[in-house]
Amino acid sequence: MRTRPLKVALLGCGVVGSEVARIMTTHADDLAARIGAPVELAGVAVRRPSRVRAGVDPALVTADATALVKRGDIDVVVEVIGGVEPARTLITTAFEHGASVVSANKALLAEDGAALHAAAEEHGRDLYYEAAVAGAIPLIRPLRESLAGDKVNRVLGIVNGTTNFILDRMDTSGAGYAEALDEATALGYAEADPTADVEGFDAAAKAAILAGIAFHTRVRLDDVYREGMTEVTAADFASAKRMGCTIKLLAICERAAGGGSVTARVHPAMIPLGHPLASVRGAYNAVFVEAEAAGRLMFYGPGAGGAPTASAVLGDLVAVCRNRLGGATGPGDSAYARLPVSPMGDVVTRYHISLDVADKPGVLAQVATVFAEHGVSIDTVRQQGRDVHGGSGSGEDGEASLVVVTHRAPDAALSGTVEALRRLDTVHGVASTMRVEGE
Amino acid sequence: MRTRPLKVALLGCGVVGSEVARIMTTHADDLAARIGAPVELAGVAVRRPSRVRAGVDPALVTADATALVKRGDIDVVVEVIGGVEPARTLITTAFEHGASVVSANKALLAEDGAALHAAAEEHGRDLYYEAAVAGAIPLIRPLRESLAGDKVNRVLGIVNGTTNFILDRMDTSGAGYAEALDEATALGYAEADPTADVEGFDAAAKAAILAGIAFHTRVRLDDVYREGMTEVTAADFASAKRMGCTIKLLAICERAAGGGSVTARVHPAMIPLGHPLASVRGAYNAVFVEAEAAGRLMFYGPGAGGAPTASAVLGDLVAVCRNRLGGATGPGDSAYARLPVSPMGDVVTRYHISLDVADKPGVLAQVATVFAEHGVSIDTVRQQGRDVHGGSGSGEDGEASLVVVTHRAPDAALSGTVEALRRLDTVHGVASTMRVEGE
Repeated sequence: MRTRPLKVALLGCGVVGSEVARIMTTHADDLAARIGAPVELAGVAVRRPSRVRAGVDPALVTADATALVKRGDIDVVVEVIGGVEPARTLITTAFEHGASVVSANKALLAEDGAALHAAAEEHGRDLYYEAAVAGAIPLIRPLRESLAGDKVNRVLGIVNGTTNFILDRMDTSGAGYAEALDEATALGYAEADPTADVEGFDAAAKAAILAGIAFHTRVRLDDVYREGMTEVTAADFASAKRMGCTIKLLAICERAAGGGSVTARVHPAMIPLGHPLASVRGAYNAVFVEAEAAGRLMFYGPGAGGAPTASAVLGDLVAVCRNRLGGATGPGDSAYARLPVSPMGDVVTRYHISLDVADKPGVLAQVATVFAEHGVSIDTVRQQGRDVHGGSGSGEDGEASLVVVTHRAPDAALSGTVEALRRLDTVHGVASTMRVEGE
Repeated sequence: MRTRPLKVALLGCGVVGSEVARIMTTHADDLAARIGAPVELAGVAVRRPSRVRAGVDPALVTADATALVKRGDIDVVVEVIGGVEPARTLITTAFEHGASVVSANKALLAEDGAALHAAAEEHGRDLYYEAAVAGAIPLIRPLRESLAGDKVNRVLGIVNGTTNFILDRMDTSGAGYAEALDEATALGYAEADPTADVEGFDAAAKAAILAGIAFHTRVRLDDVYREGMTEVTAADFASAKRMGCTIKLLAICERAAGGGSVTARVHPAMIPLGHPLASVRGAYNAVFVEAEAAGRLMFYGPGAGGAPTASAVLGDLVAVCRNRLGGATGPGDSAYARLPVSPMGDVVTRYHISLDVADKPGVLAQVATVFAEHGVSIDTVRQQGRDVHGGSGSGEDGEASLVVVTHRAPDAALSGTVEALRRLDTVHGVASTMRVEGE
């Protein structure tokens, strides 16, 4: 084994960074044996160096991240700051000064992955980022390497633990969104400002990264259709249950029929209880991958948290250090397929639509006509207004509830149908629309 | 991109080999783009060259596998013959003549992995074998690379599709073992001689491979405790259901408490219905991994079949070709930890024991005394003889049924308890013993 250590600079020492530093110390011998050389923490850049960090030698701590990545003797920069800047500049500077980079930064990779990969390649260095998607779950490496000889057709995943915790609580306890969010916040599963999670921005960044790798195509954050889950109601869960479904916030990356384009989207969807993703509880993540030869695979585990994310970072660190010792680089960016990314309107899906309608004869015929005019075929219809047992949808002023589940159709036709339904006099309102997936 | 192709020799052209050859042709452009150079099928060695193979150029087919691997211009040998010989000699010869190797051969790797890895290292070549365990499911690479910065404490998996199909049928239809095996055979899930599957030999080979990688320790097939599933009965499933469990044939690799040794075993076990492995149906495989930092991960997918196994082989082929172009090798054998492998008697587990006992007072006291004498603590006891509703365990000649579930104890103490129970006059027989796992 080489005795001169590889030098690691750590950018950021929060929940993830402090775990990385801790494990590098406590498991130093194992890491050295697996890499073939010892690794040494050569510097830790943080915003407030005066704050003492348990287990980190204060002599290593600096506020000057730029100087650290410019030192020239750093083999690997581990970036766990998050956000676009200054992370982007620091990573680019690291490549310029000869370091490889391990990052957990999904926002940056989704926003500007192409430029970062280009910088890595220009300087003959590695850019690894297993921790950017689904925390500890090995997902980037399986997609990028294990399935490199296969054709991935679809990636369908729960990639945000906060929203899965909230939806799971709503499902099991019957709580509303606000109540479940409060609980998630109290337990530390949701941040004070939960926007990035509940509005689907976090999942959309991950979808962009996954789609890019799965389809060997450049997919940017802007290419990802995004709908949050703040409007999911207890009534939606009741409807889902009636269909033998539950509701999950899904990131879905697919090849379009024919394979000439791809789509990437994030939105809440009903999925059948028998689907493996339906039983993913709490803050866990899981990603379902369908490949031509491999068939249906699923990867499951903790999607966030200091130690799980540190596990992914350290796995990358070992790989990058090994590459460095061997004078090689791992598989870089692969976007040779250059497939166009189709808009949401082209996605083929199903809708579950709840309508408040006038409780009189002929309404169903009117509604059915609108579906037919848009070329959307109806799978099932359930009317609840005339239910003598007083179902939840029964109105008081001659209003009934109509639940329509469609067959598969382009999203544009489905959303066009909903818009047209809103314009009918006999339709008093569209209580909810939700896509149905996973069949 | 390099235009001179990398040359691949295929050893074996059965269910897996023919899929490998097919995908190499149909997806040649994708493979070339991902590798950075075209790959060319340079020869296919089979036992009976006269049998025409759809899609394989007859000019490439030879009966002389040795000559093929000795050609000297072969970059990668793909071995999908299976069995120990001639595969072992062919692989060693391939390394000697400068080729890297991709193998799907679990039996050989479990039997002689160390020698093969040593040969690969001696000649500076790669030995990859993702397809040897759990078919298409990326498992070797995640364990060996993604978790390289973590400490794996346990691997718990369903790694044999045939037995999972049989057990799933017994569970869902109430069929007995023989009936379910017949069905598996008729559907092609079981071979004409199912011994390797149902007696756990196949799973034991995979357990040896997984334990070796997970614990960075040499684990041989002989080190793996093995019990088949031919004696699992419909009554066992009924007992399992009463406990909220199902029965699976599990491969379990664990660090012993304290971490100073490891164990590897294959046997049927009851696991709680809430455990993610309980819902793995049909011929699917799934492997649960517990690591110190990552937490609980699960990998799920098709564990066998031509196309899924070919997917794993081709993923390895891409990686090995990339390494070759870069003049590097991937992570090799890692057995630095050199942990001892403890015998089955040291494994800490729980037993579910069904006893046929005399239906008279004092029997439970006698039985409980035997457990106490062996230091085994009882979790629950259920007596069925005096059940006025005539439970299935009711005997006719003053016989009762006693079901005991223990707390955790060393397997030696548990099996010693069962032996001692057999010697009690009031115990007419031990109807079944089964371990309880996954809690």
